[in-house]
Amino acid sequence: MQISMYRASVPVFARNLRNLIGILRKAEASATERKIDQGVLLGYRLAPDMFPLTRQVQIATDMAKGCVSRLAGVEIPAYDDKEATFGDLIARLEKCVAYLESFKPAQIDGTEDKTIVLARPTGDVSYPGLQYLLEYVQPNVYFHCSSAYAILRHCGVNIGKKDFIGPL
Amino acid sequence: MQISMYRASVPVFARNLRNLIGILRKAEASATERKIDQGVLLGYRLAPDMFPLTRQVQIATDMAKGCVSRLAGVEIPAYDDKEATFGDLIARLEKCVAYLESFKPAQIDGTEDKTIVLARPTGDVSYPGLQYLLEYVQPNVYFHCSSAYAILRHCGVNIGKKDFIGPL
Repeated sequence: MQISMYRASVPVFARNLRNLIGILRKAEASATERKIDQGVLLGYRLAPDMFPLTRQVQIATDMAKGCVSRLAGVEIPAYDDKEATFGDLIARLEKCVAYLESFKPAQIDGTEDKTIVLARPTGDVSYPGLQYLLEYVQPNVYFHCSSAYAILRHCGVNIGKKDFIGPL
Repeated sequence: MQISMYRASVPVFARNLRNLIGILRKAEASATERKIDQGVLLGYRLAPDMFPLTRQVQIATDMAKGCVSRLAGVEIPAYDDKEATFGDLIARLEKCVAYLESFKPAQIDGTEDKTIVLARPTGDVSYPGLQYLLEYVQPNVYFHCSSAYAILRHCGVNIGKKDFIGPL
């Protein structure tokens, strides 16, 4: 198999979001077992001016669905940011994985030079598809997934790097 | 430009390690300003059974140099794990970036199906180059770089996601 824009996006993001589902399931079980209100973990932050767990998960999915939609040239589906339980976040992740995996390689491959425009408060910025994928979306997906992991690790949930990397 | 095994490894890892250098420089300055012994930050962990900052940085470089060496079929350079200051860790990162950037695309490209063997305490495991890069090394590099970031963010160093993602 050759590396391609599809291979470096859809399966990579789907894998990371699936791993995050596994991590959230362990966190949910840990909260139940330790009699911790789910909201405490969902609202937990590693620093007062850092996003809490729920927002980390939301942004990870937003980055992934935004990326494949923009590369393929289809409208980005909007998700309500109303998740209030681990079950809600897991449902969002599952919905996002199903969306990602609805794309065919032919919709994404060959988009290396496609101009991707992002709206910013300071004005639009644009990147070639390859740079957008490798230097913007991939690091963002990993950043928010591992921030979610780090919050839960810090909160004593029994997870390890294997949960983040996934089965190999 | 086409996506390739080289493009998805050498520049991606070099970019992440350079961003990590910037983060460590800010951490060093923060320690000086706040009169915190460097060793406190270097030994800080988000959980008692999680690696401290120094080890996170060491593993990030080990993953990156191991990957390009294995894909190219050259011996992996050994680094002593003796860093005791931010300056030592930054020097290790700079050495690793220079090593990564010494590779030419022709040494890495086309290694999607190359068998990569990793020694494990439980026996050797092997993966095709493409899976090794996208499902093992990339997530590991991101995991350890963002763990380093999360430790320092939790310790009050004035860094933000922009420092992790880098200039775009």
